[in-house]
Amino acid sequence: MPIVGMVGGGQLARMTAQAAIGLGATLRVLAGSDSESAALVTHDVAIGSHLSLPDVASFAGSCDVLTFDHEHVPGDILLSLESSGVLVRPGPAALRFTQDKLAMRDRLTGLGVPCPRYAPVSSVADVESFLGSFRGSWPVVLKAVSGGYDGKGVWVCSSAAEVADVLGRVLGHGIALLAEEFVPFRRELAAVVACSPSRQGAAYPVVQTVQVDGICREVIAPAPGLSATAAESAQAMALRIASALGVIGLLAVELFETSDGRLLVNELAMRPHNSGHWTIEGATTSQFEQHLRAVLDLPLGSCSPTSAGGFTVMVNLLGGTDPDVYDRYIHVMAADPAVKVHFYGKEVRPGRKIGHVTIVGAPGEDLPSLRDRARRAASYLRWGTEDGE
Amino acid sequence: MPIVGMVGGGQLARMTAQAAIGLGATLRVLAGSDSESAALVTHDVAIGSHLSLPDVASFAGSCDVLTFDHEHVPGDILLSLESSGVLVRPGPAALRFTQDKLAMRDRLTGLGVPCPRYAPVSSVADVESFLGSFRGSWPVVLKAVSGGYDGKGVWVCSSAAEVADVLGRVLGHGIALLAEEFVPFRRELAAVVACSPSRQGAAYPVVQTVQVDGICREVIAPAPGLSATAAESAQAMALRIASALGVIGLLAVELFETSDGRLLVNELAMRPHNSGHWTIEGATTSQFEQHLRAVLDLPLGSCSPTSAGGFTVMVNLLGGTDPDVYDRYIHVMAADPAVKVHFYGKEVRPGRKIGHVTIVGAPGEDLPSLRDRARRAASYLRWGTEDGE
Repeated sequence: MPIVGMVGGGQLARMTAQAAIGLGATLRVLAGSDSESAALVTHDVAIGSHLSLPDVASFAGSCDVLTFDHEHVPGDILLSLESSGVLVRPGPAALRFTQDKLAMRDRLTGLGVPCPRYAPVSSVADVESFLGSFRGSWPVVLKAVSGGYDGKGVWVCSSAAEVADVLGRVLGHGIALLAEEFVPFRRELAAVVACSPSRQGAAYPVVQTVQVDGICREVIAPAPGLSATAAESAQAMALRIASALGVIGLLAVELFETSDGRLLVNELAMRPHNSGHWTIEGATTSQFEQHLRAVLDLPLGSCSPTSAGGFTVMVNLLGGTDPDVYDRYIHVMAADPAVKVHFYGKEVRPGRKIGHVTIVGAPGEDLPSLRDRARRAASYLRWGTEDGE
Repeated sequence: MPIVGMVGGGQLARMTAQAAIGLGATLRVLAGSDSESAALVTHDVAIGSHLSLPDVASFAGSCDVLTFDHEHVPGDILLSLESSGVLVRPGPAALRFTQDKLAMRDRLTGLGVPCPRYAPVSSVADVESFLGSFRGSWPVVLKAVSGGYDGKGVWVCSSAAEVADVLGRVLGHGIALLAEEFVPFRRELAAVVACSPSRQGAAYPVVQTVQVDGICREVIAPAPGLSATAAESAQAMALRIASALGVIGLLAVELFETSDGRLLVNELAMRPHNSGHWTIEGATTSQFEQHLRAVLDLPLGSCSPTSAGGFTVMVNLLGGTDPDVYDRYIHVMAADPAVKVHFYGKEVRPGRKIGHVTIVGAPGEDLPSLRDRARRAASYLRWGTEDGE
């Protein structure tokens, strides 16, 4: 059996470890410390820094193929590994577009993929000129070109003064910025697809994601009320991006559905993604198994939903103020024997993603009631009450 | 989070480890060597012998609750642990009935649970006298009172000469024997239930099992054509046995369905069981998660099938003559993207259980075709051809 090495010891590596056990593939994890989520449960853990070439290269030397639970390994390390013969999947040429949002926007625009208007900016005048270029009005979105996640590195600014404030805080740290038009979206969607080195592609049903303060809170699969045409067009767009960018493994495309029904690409991720956690119970092949199959160049698995005609709802579990979540398991499990709790073993800190819950509905089961059940479980686990958020 | 210690490093512990990751419970495993199935994938492995009191006691000392992936820990070790305050689940008083088939038969008969006729035997005359007691005819089944599994320790004898042969081979090794009437069964069924210390019970759908040479080859869930009345009666019987015997965790009751439609208890197991592997994909709560919930005294999860109105088929993957199964993954996965392959990481030996495959059918999907798909996948993985068995 080949050995897959995953750089990063977070919950994505942890859930990939579960999938690897079933598949019989050996997963090694490079974690920053032995208390990280995946390090707690994986048999084969190396401790080291993803920012250190010696650490990553030494880790890669013990694996047959290298993959990632985040996009923070510097490009020069990835290039150096690749040139020394390591199978890096996805490779640096693809990962670059998750590490540099300006490069991503330029590339997608070049492909004719609809995106929000954007421009690199480094002054208030740049931002005003950007707005003027399409007669746009406030607010405007500023994004760090590199390094942002979960709402970090994104600022919605309603005035030149707010822009000046952000610029003053970040430019001194050498952080390049991008301005994007503020898209008045109806809702957010995500299309998760997989591509293998043999150029097989597979697409999961398009989901709706609900963000609060920039953090994904809820995923509904499939996106309710999305026409088959729109869903297929989002899947085709994601597969086309994956193919054009040379992605091996998973690609998650986060989308805005605008109030006039267009789909614009918001962000890309080339790894298992929060919008795909529902697949553990809700799809024939989980995104974690699919990512392993893809980087191992095994045939991809079926993306069919397990509840034919029904919905699956996933709600993220954020940390509250009580560090001991386990004491509340008993109430959540007793209240709803069909709720699936996933706990990442992470230290509880307020607002931190520490787990998620999933409920698979029966065909025809009422969506509002499914969402309510999932939210109540997550709320109870966070706050000790069912209506804490 | 409490720490669950599982004695035994086989595939049951391996699959329990997967479930523990999701639940956020810490699973420690006591394995005989670091190459055992569960030892390969579990973060927290102790190496030691389940036959050694110091090994098991030292392991138990690092855990909050002790449970098992087999029934081979000697009763005196279990009693000693229990008397020193270890939470042993299931406890020695219950496990005794999986270790001593004569005690099990006596206890079940005392409870009024239908069983095949039986008698302890130590000579040909004993066996003939047993047959005479109910005017039975050959063949007769001889069983080792302790230590048998997967067809080992069971002999179907068609004559006094065959009985003499078995007696000659085993009595010298201090193995006590039991004679049982040969039940002309229509098919074999299994009822898997769980009980928690809080006395909650949960019952999975009753399944049909197909045995070849004493080894389970295939499980169909739910058992096709079994009336709701018969299914409920099997579930109720299993729950009653679990309650009467004080089982904590899972109880699998293997049943004969006789040609006149009666259900007789064949064997008991108090742990995750081969007849429950289908629950990983086929039920809302897998048997492995359920066992953990029960021994942790968490509320039990829903046993509902994920395919409402459909069948799930599991086929065991036995070793063939080629040690490298992985090379055949690609064909099986390409041929059927919905087949779920589970590989145990065990060295391939002819006839050894090295994994299983599961297919969850859609509601109304044709059972013969599901069975055919699952068998073909298992056959290809074993022999490199789809019709090898």
